[in-house]
Amino acid sequence: MTGRLIGVGLGPGDPELMSVRADRLIRGARHLAYFRKAGRRGRARKLIDALIAPGAEEIALEYPVTTEIPVTDPAYNAILAEFYDAACADLRFRIQGGQTIVVPCEGDPFFYGSFMHLYTRLRDDVPVEVVPGITGMSAAWTATGEPITWGDDVLSVVMATLPEDELTRRIAETDALVVMKIGRNFDKLCRSLRRAGKFDRAWLVECAAMEEQQVMKLSEAEGRRVPYFTIVMIHGQGRRP
Amino acid sequence: MTGRLIGVGLGPGDPELMSVRADRLIRGARHLAYFRKAGRRGRARKLIDALIAPGAEEIALEYPVTTEIPVTDPAYNAILAEFYDAACADLRFRIQGGQTIVVPCEGDPFFYGSFMHLYTRLRDDVPVEVVPGITGMSAAWTATGEPITWGDDVLSVVMATLPEDELTRRIAETDALVVMKIGRNFDKLCRSLRRAGKFDRAWLVECAAMEEQQVMKLSEAEGRRVPYFTIVMIHGQGRRP
Repeated sequence: MTGRLIGVGLGPGDPELMSVRADRLIRGARHLAYFRKAGRRGRARKLIDALIAPGAEEIALEYPVTTEIPVTDPAYNAILAEFYDAACADLRFRIQGGQTIVVPCEGDPFFYGSFMHLYTRLRDDVPVEVVPGITGMSAAWTATGEPITWGDDVLSVVMATLPEDELTRRIAETDALVVMKIGRNFDKLCRSLRRAGKFDRAWLVECAAMEEQQVMKLSEAEGRRVPYFTIVMIHGQGRRP
Repeated sequence: MTGRLIGVGLGPGDPELMSVRADRLIRGARHLAYFRKAGRRGRARKLIDALIAPGAEEIALEYPVTTEIPVTDPAYNAILAEFYDAACADLRFRIQGGQTIVVPCEGDPFFYGSFMHLYTRLRDDVPVEVVPGITGMSAAWTATGEPITWGDDVLSVVMATLPEDELTRRIAETDALVVMKIGRNFDKLCRSLRRAGKFDRAWLVECAAMEEQQVMKLSEAEGRRVPYFTIVMIHGQGRRP
């Protein structure tokens, strides 16, 4: 009798913003697997700390590399592919042996999530289920106290890892904007926003819906060293009655 | 002693995809206000049917017009503005008199939501709180069984109400795509997708995470009469280890 792989969206970081289903699945899990940086506790793990059942088995999947190698280096992909393959070999063995493995995922599993790398490797071999979650960007625009989109507004979600010219063009051409994967691309992003003439309209949200949440106009944040969970956004100004 | 206005994201339509906080707030609400089409029960209302406390007061805000007038007609905006103003006059009076009004909202309140029209009218007069929710688009891409974005993919969220040429250009220029507000713009959207050379990659999801959910390749859906809660999407193909 085979088990299942369940990717569970935890939402943006406040345990109360987890879905009722996610809460139920995490509490009921007998085997949990989650990603983390080596030597860290892991954000997903921390978020579910109060929910894990006594005696539940925990499988920590530790990234062999995070920001030490640029993502554009072919070695980065090769190392990560090997890591995901090995993790999936273990999970496949466990699931085919009858274990149901719950994978807690920050945000929404299918929206720029690490779970996707397990999912595509295991979906043909074992039963898989995915539970969507509230995205970090929803928590971020909620934190600014301003709706993100109105009427016919176009929303563009853009990674700050893009080349500066493309980033600038994407920012110029959209109504509402969400930028993620900022980290060491922060200065480039600020230049792109200036070139697109939208710097003064931008907001910065760090760690939306977490204890460390910070919300400010981007113009108050320049030169700041921003954490990984940072989102920059511009609110749409579309039609409204 | 004044009350509060609380906009509560209910998520896409499955009560288990409501957040733990939303579930708690709806169950505890003594006064609930929600939008609905005249003569209908209201989708938000239906979603929380099992949660409403005995004796809770319900305030139905009935749209004076929905699709009878095109949104581009100035009369449409005028009629809706009057409706929102009147609804807010009542809610302001209640809240300043001490009532806390909970407004259940489909999806996420700040993402193309009707709650925004109450929020902007009341935020300066009474305490307001907003609880984000899982968007319909998250439920839709989860339903297709394919992640929506990878690596540096740009995601564009676009309304089918846009003019055909702009719609075509937006579709052509993005990696991943989500289209909403489809309804009577369905044929135009299909033409735009064809012109952008992406028709065969598109998926259609009706009523994601609801009992009536339908998932199909768009090529199997042409000529279909689609319900309001329909999303068309194209999945990104970005970098993946």
